[in-house]
Amino acid sequence: MPNRICDLLEIEHPILQGGMTWVSDAVLAAAVSNGGGLGIIGAGAMPAEMLREEVQRARELTDRPFGVNMIMINPEFEKQAAVLMEEKPPVVTLGAVTSTSIIPAFKEQGVKVLPVVAAVAMARRAEQHGADAVIAEGEEAGGHIGGTSTMVLTPLVSRAIGLPVIAAGGIADGAAVVAAFALGAEGVQMGTRFVVAEESTVHQEVKNKFIKAGDRATVVTARTVGYPVRALKNKLANLYEKWEKDFIAGKCTVEDIENLGLGKLREAMREGNVRDGSMMAGQCVALVDKIQPAAEIIAEVVAEAEAVAAAIPDRVDLHR
Amino acid sequence: MPNRICDLLEIEHPILQGGMTWVSDAVLAAAVSNGGGLGIIGAGAMPAEMLREEVQRARELTDRPFGVNMIMINPEFEKQAAVLMEEKPPVVTLGAVTSTSIIPAFKEQGVKVLPVVAAVAMARRAEQHGADAVIAEGEEAGGHIGGTSTMVLTPLVSRAIGLPVIAAGGIADGAAVVAAFALGAEGVQMGTRFVVAEESTVHQEVKNKFIKAGDRATVVTARTVGYPVRALKNKLANLYEKWEKDFIAGKCTVEDIENLGLGKLREAMREGNVRDGSMMAGQCVALVDKIQPAAEIIAEVVAEAEAVAAAIPDRVDLHR
Repeated sequence: MPNRICDLLEIEHPILQGGMTWVSDAVLAAAVSNGGGLGIIGAGAMPAEMLREEVQRARELTDRPFGVNMIMINPEFEKQAAVLMEEKPPVVTLGAVTSTSIIPAFKEQGVKVLPVVAAVAMARRAEQHGADAVIAEGEEAGGHIGGTSTMVLTPLVSRAIGLPVIAAGGIADGAAVVAAFALGAEGVQMGTRFVVAEESTVHQEVKNKFIKAGDRATVVTARTVGYPVRALKNKLANLYEKWEKDFIAGKCTVEDIENLGLGKLREAMREGNVRDGSMMAGQCVALVDKIQPAAEIIAEVVAEAEAVAAAIPDRVDLHR
Repeated sequence: MPNRICDLLEIEHPILQGGMTWVSDAVLAAAVSNGGGLGIIGAGAMPAEMLREEVQRARELTDRPFGVNMIMINPEFEKQAAVLMEEKPPVVTLGAVTSTSIIPAFKEQGVKVLPVVAAVAMARRAEQHGADAVIAEGEEAGGHIGGTSTMVLTPLVSRAIGLPVIAAGGIADGAAVVAAFALGAEGVQMGTRFVVAEESTVHQEVKNKFIKAGDRATVVTARTVGYPVRALKNKLANLYEKWEKDFIAGKCTVEDIENLGLGKLREAMREGNVRDGSMMAGQCVALVDKIQPAAEIIAEVVAEAEAVAAAIPDRVDLHR
């Protein structure tokens, strides 16, 4: 049977690169798309006209489809959406989905829309509003996360809707791709692994931290405040812990904590302040151990997945 | 290649039933073992002589191997261990592993020892101290949990040690078994699914709650206190949230919170107080939807896994 994600997105391999603010620019996105996956520009809080330039730059760097990830709770969202209605990137993925009514508007422009969902109810709503597929993201992912793991969310979402499901969260190699497909996914999205792609323009110090990170390297901050974020442990993460306690004790507000976080992602990812900045990363950072060109990452993951898949019928021997 | 878990534990199928305090007694454990898996008595805080009776009862109810799960931080641990050195159940699994030096003592008595690990370092330590296999438990599991998901922990542990790895956390059906094997496991442990086994003696009201639970049914309490526990959301879980805030604000101590939790598991599981008691459950409670005999659960999971595994080479088509 043909892969529905490849057919839908007109890509060679059903591997998406997660949109990452201050990380996935046109250069990384184009490298991933040129490697046969779907590269995705992370719009984040980018001013709308800068986003337009990034989209145009991606078009210069690749002839293949690519996407833009938008965060709906971002103050720039409306302006960014207006620009994208004009620029019409092949795909838009939507994070922090507050409403699914934007989906038909994009689709009318010929833009495919893939919401990122962390719960079954949102996946159903996305399907009702005409999404082309959904990205089911487990809580092991980096950045803003939900509360259900990939192992449980993937089958729940796959069984609840008819749309193809792209699994995200905890996926950094071919074994995880096979696991995701066993659970019902037809594609995967990887963020963390592409942070260390050769074409990724994050600061070298950040790449070094990612390569070194082990299984207890990430922490979820701001959970008590209501918007959990997974990032590498560092001085900033420790500070968050203190601020959250202050928040619970009534000594500061949610806004105070939000303000304390302003600019921190940029400070780490672009400027290399790995101590005081925020290095959003998924748990699978522990599985990431080398810098490679994006196309090589994709080829390696595909080859690994095919090898693991071929061995599965023999390996799953459940009788003595 | 033969399955190492079946060989090691002398069981028909590499499926373990997680030891669950106030849930997995000799009756459930024997039903699982008679179904070809490994049933496990949850010792919890059971007085040592009561544990002796449970082990003897399991021996009356099944001729097949079974296990006992011990929680090392439990005050009864030393006495329980002394009884088990005499009773010599075929297998002991160790939770809340504070030290691995108990492993050789059990092994001298011919008891196989499987520590439950939530981190790579502990898995390495368990191997060094002669464990027969490890149970790598992801944070989607019920009860006391670690901080890494099954999707990431399973490959990390499998690659770090030479012992066979049993994956736990988020596993309730055959698809998840195939996922776990793809990630490197050679066996699985399921707790939540067996709570609703016909032979499970938990209160019917608890089974009803498990059957109805959806993807946002569980919550992790006591995370801020340092010993995170996953359970179904209810009035008690809400209270925990309040107590944790009091703890952070310095209005109560860890001991106060521990005392508030005393007896709550029993209150729910045995007495059916699903509002004020603690119903420890894994995220995969959302995938659990019927009451069946334990042997039927095992047969169904095996059949599902074999079907999913057989289809994997075709399904993992990663080219357009």
